Amino acid sequence: MLAGLDEIAGTGRDARRGGYSRHLWQGADLELRAWFTERAERLGLMVATDRNGNLWAWWGEPGPGAVVTGSHLDSVPGGGAYDGPLGVVSAFEAIGRLQASGFVPSRPVAVLVFAEEEGSRFGIACLGSRLMTGGIDADRARALVDPDGVTLAEAAVRAGVDPERLGADREALGRIGLFIELHVEQGRGLIDLGRPVAVASSILAHGRWRLTVTGQGNHAGATLMPGRRDPMVAAARAVVAVHEASSAIPGARATVGRLEVVPGGTNVIASTVHAWLDARCETDAGTRALVAAITARVEEAVGLNGCSVSVTEESWTGTVTFDHGLRECFGRELGGVPFLPTGAGHDAGVLAASVPSAMLFVRNPTGISHSPEEFAEADDCVAGIDALETLLRSLL
Amino acid sequence: MLAGLDEIAGTGRDARRGGYSRHLWQGADLELRAWFTERAERLGLMVATDRNGNLWAWWGEPGPGAVVTGSHLDSVPGGGAYDGPLGVVSAFEAIGRLQASGFVPSRPVAVLVFAEEEGSRFGIACLGSRLMTGGIDADRARALVDPDGVTLAEAAVRAGVDPERLGADREALGRIGLFIELHVEQGRGLIDLGRPVAVASSILAHGRWRLTVTGQGNHAGATLMPGRRDPMVAAARAVVAVHEASSAIPGARATVGRLEVVPGGTNVIASTVHAWLDARCETDAGTRALVAAITARVEEAVGLNGCSVSVTEESWTGTVTFDHGLRECFGRELGGVPFLPTGAGHDAGVLAASVPSAMLFVRNPTGISHSPEEFAEADDCVAGIDALETLLRSLL
Repeated sequence: MLAGLDEIAGTGRDARRGGYSRHLWQGADLELRAWFTERAERLGLMVATDRNGNLWAWWGEPGPGAVVTGSHLDSVPGGGAYDGPLGVVSAFEAIGRLQASGFVPSRPVAVLVFAEEEGSRFGIACLGSRLMTGGIDADRARALVDPDGVTLAEAAVRAGVDPERLGADREALGRIGLFIELHVEQGRGLIDLGRPVAVASSILAHGRWRLTVTGQGNHAGATLMPGRRDPMVAAARAVVAVHEASSAIPGARATVGRLEVVPGGTNVIASTVHAWLDARCETDAGTRALVAAITARVEEAVGLNGCSVSVTEESWTGTVTFDHGLRECFGRELGGVPFLPTGAGHDAGVLAASVPSAMLFVRNPTGISHSPEEFAEADDCVAGIDALETLLRSLL
Repeated sequence: MLAGLDEIAGTGRDARRGGYSRHLWQGADLELRAWFTERAERLGLMVATDRNGNLWAWWGEPGPGAVVTGSHLDSVPGGGAYDGPLGVVSAFEAIGRLQASGFVPSRPVAVLVFAEEEGSRFGIACLGSRLMTGGIDADRARALVDPDGVTLAEAAVRAGVDPERLGADREALGRIGLFIELHVEQGRGLIDLGRPVAVASSILAHGRWRLTVTGQGNHAGATLMPGRRDPMVAAARAVVAVHEASSAIPGARATVGRLEVVPGGTNVIASTVHAWLDARCETDAGTRALVAAITARVEEAVGLNGCSVSVTEESWTGTVTFDHGLRECFGRELGGVPFLPTGAGHDAGVLAASVPSAMLFVRNPTGISHSPEEFAEADDCVAGIDALETLLRSLL
């Protein structure tokens, strides 16, 4: 494992799921924030938290036109060790090398950690970058609820963040001259190419929808099968419909990875089932068409069991095509590095609409992510840091 | 609502699910135990907790040959107000009437509350009666785990119960000369008959099985549809298979009311899904055949998505036919009361293998149970108390 990642290897391990569960402002996330501060201070960087809970470490005076690099420290439930932290650790490593070589930057530099990138606590991915850029309404964000019924506003107070100041942050955004996010690859692109590092070309359009299937709760033993309106069976048909509808469209991806049965007793026919749909496709129109096709199939499927369904959009991110000039420039600096599209969302994708943004991917030899099996070889991690250092030198 | 039930109407309300969530040795259950003690002491009864956490209130000296009546105070998640507490409140009411009339019992009398009847915390229904009768191995019981990873042994310690003394309790069981459980009906039998009260004739064979579906976790956006081994889709096919297999067998009931997705992130293809099957049928052999048919269909269904499934029996209760002589006798005492079978399991069904046991059902005008919609009219509750009082007078 890359030196640096080993410092946080013990933080937020999930004994039940395997891997790591590090969720916004909860124990592991708070420990990682403390580690970030300590790690930054070792490099003489000045740490500050912005209005939306994003963490900054400044090399030089904070100011506009800064070259900012970083990623996130939170994880999906039971996630891998690299998704997020690799970008943060690599940023510290690259800055450490620049400092060690006596390099003096001509512009401010910062390491940035976005809050709640995975949306694992409050349901909206890239929440910190969406808030900063005004991509989500602050009132809506404050009212978001975690699985324990705690609102984002309440959680912010407990974390020492003023909930009234959440929202579009022109001052913070205005300081970012350019953002580079280094990230472990979450597919097999670099395996297939036999290369350690790539520059991102685009991110698929993607979003999250909540399917709420409603039926009639009752006793599992005393209720005959005919006439049951069991939303669990209806939701199951909906999950199969999601899979079949998306499998019929080349390039489309649709997943139900989270499902909540209410009330959730073994001897109880459920009254309601919530299922969360993650859907992605090549273009914005393609993704909208995918969700429309899924919705039609799901409505038909739940009707077979006398249930009804409502479909609510929880988040939406259109297709991101990273700045063409910037990536051509990065390609030249890095000596013919390949360009790769991704199906995974990132804060760099959210920022791309506001400031020049780019991404570096590091090879993942398992091709698996959002899982304890996610991996990166130490040599490939070093290649990622080399690339990031090269870009910082050329930009500063 | 029946006077008596109103005293506990505020305890354990579940704001999220509706209805009540009252689980073994947690806040609401502890409050209900305190209420039970206070209510019993108002009648001059002597309260004791047995080795397995079951609560007794004695009228007269504890001893063998006692006429025991009661039910349970725990609930399914989001359950109704009557399932369990109606039997406890009715027992107190009937004893109060006997005392008020100057009646002097010739045998000891007790009100009994069984622990964890619904199995909502540790997964095994009728846990208190199974432990008392030796129907579950004490070592297996001690190792049962709640959703927070707390073992029954640990929970017992916190509740002041010695986990080493859990298990078959011949002394407690030996005191029960006869057990009567009054319970709200959980189907439509009494609605159809137009009658307020019935005596139970039998309980369907039933059990719980855990289906663990295993696939390959991965990133929801970066993983193409072809080649996915998504256990959520496989589990969904399994749930549909459960429904279809049981719907094809007259009288069979099979339900998946609880499901757990691991890791459970919106943007994560799951690695494992646990689904709990509740299956019941007319005879022991019929229920075994139902589960075998379901298992075969489920194995085939999960294979369609390249997943595998393991099926583990968590509990089993054979068909209970209540003592024929006793119920004929009760029928005469109660002036031609109807006899009704039920698909719902009860502690009286577990006890029936060890001591003479019987049940009274009170009409539920919604026909719905394990749901906030469960109900009983006050007049019907009074008819239930009348019946219980009549039986106690005849037995004492």
